This record gives sequence, C-alpha cells and structure tokens, in this order.
Amino acid sequence: MNNRRILAVGSVALDSVRTPFGKVREALGGSAAYFSASARFFSPVSVVAVVGTDFPKKHLHLMQGLGIDTHGIQREEGKTFRWSGFYDYDLNNAHTLETQLNVFKNFKPKLSEKNKKSPFVFLANSDPGIQEAVLGQVKNPVLTACDTMNYWIQNKKTGLTRLLKKVDIFLLNDSEARQLSGEYNLIRASQWILGRGPRLLVIKKGEHGVICVSKNFIFLAPAFLLEKIFDPTGAGDSFAGGFMGYLTRSPHLDESTVRRAVVYGSVLASYNVESFSLKRVVSLKRSDIEKRYKQFQKLTKF
Amino acid sequence: MNNRRILAVGSVALDSVRTPFGKVREALGGSAAYFSASARFFSPVSVVAVVGTDFPKKHLHLMQGLGIDTHGIQREEGKTFRWSGFYDYDLNNAHTLETQLNVFKNFKPKLSEKNKKSPFVFLANSDPGIQEAVLGQVKNPVLTACDTMNYWIQNKKTGLTRLLKKVDIFLLNDSEARQLSGEYNLIRASQWILGRGPRLLVIKKGEHGVICVSKNFIFLAPAFLLEKIFDPTGAGDSFAGGFMGYLTRSPHLDESTVRRAVVYGSVLASYNVESFSLKRVVSLKRSDIEKRYKQFQKLTKF
Repeated sequence: MNNRRILAVGSVALDSVRTPFGKVREALGGSAAYFSASARFFSPVSVVAVVGTDFPKKHLHLMQGLGIDTHGIQREEGKTFRWSGFYDYDLNNAHTLETQLNVFKNFKPKLSEKNKKSPFVFLANSDPGIQEAVLGQVKNPVLTACDTMNYWIQNKKTGLTRLLKKVDIFLLNDSEARQLSGEYNLIRASQWILGRGPRLLVIKKGEHGVICVSKNFIFLAPAFLLEKIFDPTGAGDSFAGGFMGYLTRSPHLDESTVRRAVVYGSVLASYNVESFSLKRVVSLKRSDIEKRYKQFQKLTKF
Repeated sequence: MNNRRILAVGSVALDSVRTPFGKVREALGGSAAYFSASARFFSPVSVVAVVGTDFPKKHLHLMQGLGIDTHGIQREEGKTFRWSGFYDYDLNNAHTLETQLNVFKNFKPKLSEKNKKSPFVFLANSDPGIQEAVLGQVKNPVLTACDTMNYWIQNKKTGLTRLLKKVDIFLLNDSEARQLSGEYNLIRASQWILGRGPRLLVIKKGEHGVICVSKNFIFLAPAFLLEKIFDPTGAGDSFAGGFMGYLTRSPHLDESTVRRAVVYGSVLASYNVESFSLKRVVSLKRSDIEKRYKQFQKLTKF
C-alpha cells in the first residue's frame, strides 16, 4: 500500500459557514482536510499543513482516527487559518465574508524524509511558488496534481505557468479556466491549458459536473443530482480526493481509469455537500461509495 | 409512417440575432420551424402556425423541401412574428431587444381534418389556453408534449396547470422549473411538477445539459461539448424535435427509449447552435446525426 501513498499539501482551517439550511462556526475545514478525508478510502494519505496554537486537538484526533497521517501538520505560534462565508440558494457561488490567513500566511512547508518519498502528490490551492517549492522536495513522484484559484491566476500567473510545466494533472473550476486561458469556450480553454504542460485537465463546474480533457479524449460527467445540498464548501477538494485516490490504482492516466476516477471524485463530492464540514464523509462506509457509484451509472447510461 | 406523424403547433417567425460571432437579419426562426427541421429526420411533421403577408415564400419552400407538411401554416393579413435579440459570450442567456407578435397575437389555430388525426402532438411555447384549445381538437393522440416560458408561468399559471393535467411530456428550462414549482432544488421542483400531471419531465439546462425525470427514473445528460457555438437560438426547440421525433418509434415512454431520445434531442440541438437560423440542421444528413450520437456515447461512458 505504501507505493500508493498520497501527499496532500494545503490548508487545514476553521470554517464558519452559513447556508439557507443552517450554519456552523469554526468547523474543521481547509483543502487538505477535505481532500484527505475523501482520498483515504482509496490510499494512505499524509497531510502537510500548518495550524495555530488555537487549533482544537479533537480535529487532529478526528483526522488520525480516519487513518490520515498527520505528522506533517505543523503547529505554529499564532492563530489557525480561518474562512467565513455564506451561500444563497444558488449554492454554486460562495460569498466570502472574511479570510484570515494567520499562520498560513508564511507557510513554507519543509517535507519530512517520509513525505519526500510520496509517489503521489496533490498540491491544493495556494501560492504557485509554494506549490512549486514543495514539489521540488519530492523525490521521483509518480503522479502529481495541483489546484489553483482566481487570486493566483490574477497575481501569480508566471509562477503558475511554471508550475503547470511540472505537474501531470491540473484541476480548476470553469471560470478559472476561462480566466487563465482568456478563452470563453471551454474546449479552447482546455487546449490552451494542455498546451502549457499538464497531461490531464479537470474543469470543475460545481452542480453542472466535470469536464475532463487530455490530448486523446474528453469525458463529460454530470454532478450527482441531490435533493438536499447542505453546504458546498470543500466539494472541489473532496472531488480531488476521490479522483486522485482512485488514480493511485493505475497511475498511467489510461482513459478508462481516468473516467472512473472522475466519477469516484464526483461521488465523494456529492456526499461531502450533504452536511457541514467533514461530517458526512467522516461517517461514510466504503460500501456507500460503491452504492452511489452504481447510482451514478444508472443516472447517466443510455 | 403515417401512424408516426407529429403535429407541431407554434411559431414561424423572422429572427434578427446578434452573437459575438456574427449577426443575421430576419432569418427564418420560430419554435415550430426549429422543431420541425429536427423532428423530420425521424417522422413526418406537420406544422401549424401563422405568418403575415410579408413572409418570404422561400422560407415556406425551404420547409417543404425538407419534407415538412406546411398546409397548416396560415397566411394572415399583417406582418409576421418578429423577434430580435442578442447574446454575449455567455451564450446561455438571450437578451431580447424586441418582440413583435404581429399576426401571432390573435393566433387561434383551427386544425384541418388531417392534422386532427395526428398521433403525436408537440405544443410549442405559447399561451396555455391556446395550447389547450389545440390539444382539444386532436382526436385520440398517442403522445403529447408541451413547452412553456416564464411569461406564461407568471401570467397564466392556472391555464398552464390545467394544460399539465392533459399532456404526457412537459419540457421547460431550469429557471422556469424553479419559477413554476417555487422549489430551487431541481429534484424537488421535478417532484412538484410531476405531481401536476405529466408522466415525463424534461428540464433543459442549455450548455449544462438536460435532466429527464419520470416517476421511475432520472436521466442526466450533459450537453454536447462544442468548440464553436454560433447562435443558441432555437436550441430548445431543436432538442424537442429530435427528442419527440425519436419517441415516435416507441411511444410508451419506456426508460431506454426515453434516454436515447434525450441524447438524440441533444444531438440535434448541438448541430442547431452551430449556425444562425436553421442553416446547419437543414444541411444535415441522417448519418451526421448517428455520428454525433456515437461521439456522445464516447464523451459520457465510464
């Protein structure tokens, strides 16, 4: 199993979220937390992140209880990264009320010897310079993926372009793909991005599903249709967790594995949005994942 | 073949459209024109509509050349229905500049004896009272479908609710489904609408595909991914044409036929948006349709 170990570098945060269906204060969140809670169903995951001295121990214990390796989570003097925001009925758009980077602001991860040997690497959204510096520490990775966000596209495009030459898989949402490429049409945007390095591109469209593009194929997956979407926070990172987790089984990015990985990613994301924070994903059994994967087949076959 | 005849009641119009890729003035348009140009690949279609004395004969000849029965298109004293509008890069939203109903305003179709015997009926978007009056003239229809729009939901909800008790299939877009049901979530919206009469509901989401719902199953289809979308006008009616056309092969709404019909509808809609007016669909061969159907399978299988 160790040759399928995933290193997830990103944030572990305290999120305060309000949706039309309720609210939560300072709940466990952050890209690396969401990613790892989903990916652990498929592969061992080790998280690299930073938290402040105020970070509740119970959150760390929760992650450890899920089998997540947390030795790379540093505790620094200061406060933990906090995000607060809300969603209206149009749950596809997050409205940020406040972002406090706190200890995350000066986060420059130094990987342990164990983490340097990770065959699989997921670089969650952060400064492309940091992402690149982390990647440089990993010895002979088998498969690497990164995410990003509008802020880095606007302010660190050179660094992001350099990073894209070094990763195998790039995940971002549809508006970010348009922003980065300057192309409104998503096929053209994909071609532009694939021309910058990555072998595989995953464009996340929230409730409208996913477009996965390589030089050889395109795969369109709708999002799982849910009657209750409680809180979309973390959907993209849960997707990435299920997706990357499944890919560790066959890291050559062959077409049929990638297609199934997209669906597993969608399954994890669909469970994640059924509750606040990591609640639903924490309570999942592996059989729940297979069950929804089969439902996904029923929903889409023709 | 006559037992598969479709009656299409709606508008035949002159459209002036501007998109980021060009513009066209007073081109052939209207729901019944778009519907019939797509449906004719599968079944004989007879159009019931009204045009003014200014309606160019060439448009009528074009439709006849496609094998469309136009004996139900009345020519009335006055001007033809005109719509003008534009689209920005976000081609999912039409911006109306002007709607001139003209002769369409007082359109109260009286069906010919031949049209009264149509086994299949498509009532394109118009006043629900008119749609119901037309439906009442058809003798023993086998399968009936209707479309609508936000204006009628807001202003003629009672009439629309009465109509829904009498049709088998109801097509509308996602924002209309939300408006009609008062439910933001599309599963709940679907349940609300299916509780009002129709056996099958098709929610059109434009570039984000289609959700098709019956009491027994849900089918999610993404929209075909295109590199060039020239003009989205008529996409919904082209969809309905391909969908309804395919359904005439097996009108019992069995699950697998319905699923394939949704994909055929999506194929026709995807071709339609590749040019202004009916241009692309007019030039299609049946083999083009099968080709894209197969591409659709490739895009979505996992």
